[in-house]
Amino acid sequence: MSFQLQIEATRGAARAGKLVTPHGIVETPVFMPVGTVASVKGISQDLLEELGVEILLSNTYHLFLRPGVETVRQMGGLHRFMSWDRAILTDSGGFQVFSLESRRQVDDNGVTFRSHLDGSEHRFTPESVVEFQETIGSDIAMVLDVCVKLPAQPHELEESVRLTTLWAQRSVATRKAAATALFGIVQGGLDPALRERSACELVALDFPGYAIGGLSVGETRDQMYATARVTASMLPQEKPRYLMGVGTVRDLLEAIDAGLDLFDCVYPTRCGRNGRAMTHDGELNLFNAAFTRDFSPLDRHCDCNTCTTFSRAYLSHLFRSREMLGPRLLSHHNVYLVNALMREARVAIEAREWTNFRTRWRANA
Amino acid sequence: MSFQLQIEATRGAARAGKLVTPHGIVETPVFMPVGTVASVKGISQDLLEELGVEILLSNTYHLFLRPGVETVRQMGGLHRFMSWDRAILTDSGGFQVFSLESRRQVDDNGVTFRSHLDGSEHRFTPESVVEFQETIGSDIAMVLDVCVKLPAQPHELEESVRLTTLWAQRSVATRKAAATALFGIVQGGLDPALRERSACELVALDFPGYAIGGLSVGETRDQMYATARVTASMLPQEKPRYLMGVGTVRDLLEAIDAGLDLFDCVYPTRCGRNGRAMTHDGELNLFNAAFTRDFSPLDRHCDCNTCTTFSRAYLSHLFRSREMLGPRLLSHHNVYLVNALMREARVAIEAREWTNFRTRWRANA
Repeated sequence: MSFQLQIEATRGAARAGKLVTPHGIVETPVFMPVGTVASVKGISQDLLEELGVEILLSNTYHLFLRPGVETVRQMGGLHRFMSWDRAILTDSGGFQVFSLESRRQVDDNGVTFRSHLDGSEHRFTPESVVEFQETIGSDIAMVLDVCVKLPAQPHELEESVRLTTLWAQRSVATRKAAATALFGIVQGGLDPALRERSACELVALDFPGYAIGGLSVGETRDQMYATARVTASMLPQEKPRYLMGVGTVRDLLEAIDAGLDLFDCVYPTRCGRNGRAMTHDGELNLFNAAFTRDFSPLDRHCDCNTCTTFSRAYLSHLFRSREMLGPRLLSHHNVYLVNALMREARVAIEAREWTNFRTRWRANA
Repeated sequence: MSFQLQIEATRGAARAGKLVTPHGIVETPVFMPVGTVASVKGISQDLLEELGVEILLSNTYHLFLRPGVETVRQMGGLHRFMSWDRAILTDSGGFQVFSLESRRQVDDNGVTFRSHLDGSEHRFTPESVVEFQETIGSDIAMVLDVCVKLPAQPHELEESVRLTTLWAQRSVATRKAAATALFGIVQGGLDPALRERSACELVALDFPGYAIGGLSVGETRDQMYATARVTASMLPQEKPRYLMGVGTVRDLLEAIDAGLDLFDCVYPTRCGRNGRAMTHDGELNLFNAAFTRDFSPLDRHCDCNTCTTFSRAYLSHLFRSREMLGPRLLSHHNVYLVNALMREARVAIEAREWTNFRTRWRANA
């Protein structure tokens, strides 16, 4: 079987497993670095491999606009275009399109929008985004969904669930490529009843995996944790569960504890570009004056290349001098740290140390 | 002996050799990538090592302003600060200070200038810049010289030669660190008589190496080649000769042929950041529309990682999308190409193939 989650251990809702994909095995829980336009900002493909990254995320919306689906197809698909042999999950573009707000219009058959690049008009339908993702050869494709910013009116959330289910049905009907696993996306805001309706309707379609969408869009952290937890419990045990848009240490710990397996976020790389370090002792801002003469390593508990090779003073100097090596070294470190967190979480779940592990990290996160 | 040039082969004026430094042997002719503020833009230190770079250049002027000589000293010197174990040549700051034009004032004892960063006032003297470079642990330090933009009046050039010699004498008198080799810099514009006067006065001071300054500052290429050639012939055979600020394929070929050994320039990395590729078939602009669907390698004669891994279409996509991976991959390629040119030039000089080699490359450069 080319796509399957093998659960190897559980502690409460938390689980450790192996996701079999056409481009290799992905150990879960896993954080997927974001390569929006077929490149993870600050980290080259060979370094991602060296870091042990087994899956990354790219965005259909961005690739559709540039370089275009047809160019990627002619190159032999996204893996070959960007020289990445491991797994790729592509977002449907739903989230990006709905972020355009005034520049998009939804109807029952899809969404018409204007490009953020040049204002040109385009249309996504449930069918077209599945076809795009199959064409570029994604290992995991996402359905087109309707994502609503929070707080939202009940009728907006209900409408988003109605359309998301309708589009999910059409997505399932149109899929062709056996090598691409299509995930459904549960919507419903913070309302458990709506989340349950959305989850039930999608589970009836028997997707090979499910995502929780519509979170990290304006709610509080506690609201997000509660909704992620209750929604995860509505999804099939044996299938992978993906919480979209989550990437801080604390959010990841809570989401793993809630029974989620896959995560993505620009947070570690965006922080890396802006001088914000994620460390075992909390987050640090490298523009802080104290670091200009701090000759200790960035994170004394980290054994990444950045921490074992360079000092805080040198990193601080690079950021102050706007040298691109700064963003590179810090993005490297942040992704290494989040990756290590995932790897250690797996070990902790398997060793029945999960609760201690989570408590220890949470003390600083 | 900790600093010495061993000449291994010559063809006409061109020579191949080995420069022994406290941080390893540097095979010449050699191109030094520029790490202005202790980082080569677009290429990390570990990649520079992998590329076989044996020496790089950093700028005293920039390091003096940020992070400051004292910070670098406290870090154990420039090598340790930037985690680079191979040789480093530092420019004296003369060129940068004279580029400030309206923001500097020269007298017989030094130059007072305002920082390009914050307008603060500082002063460099022949003694202070030697002390700075010795303090940060440069393998090769440059004297403070007076660099004049071309075209220039005869009296300006004469004054620059007078001061450069005066300062060179004071530099020699003040040097202390045996581990730092101090080079003199020949000035004199395009006037052979002035160049000869400058060269003679400096050779009398018995520097361990000599640079030709005051070129690539407004003259034509042919004027530069002629002046470099005649000036090189005035310098001692057995000592290293460094042509400052040269880095295109054609300039490097001419300079090697004129008997120069060391070169530096921001050209390969600056082009790399701006989408300009140096190739065996001439230079290419990756923003050219033709490349968006060109699935061939950047340079089919190059075996660098960029050329063996990625297509022109992908590189073009990265530059159009302003992804930082584009500048990185292209800076990598350009420096690899210039490095390969130097390595092949050495082999050609040793194999008595230099004239053929030079002619072949010049056909496309």
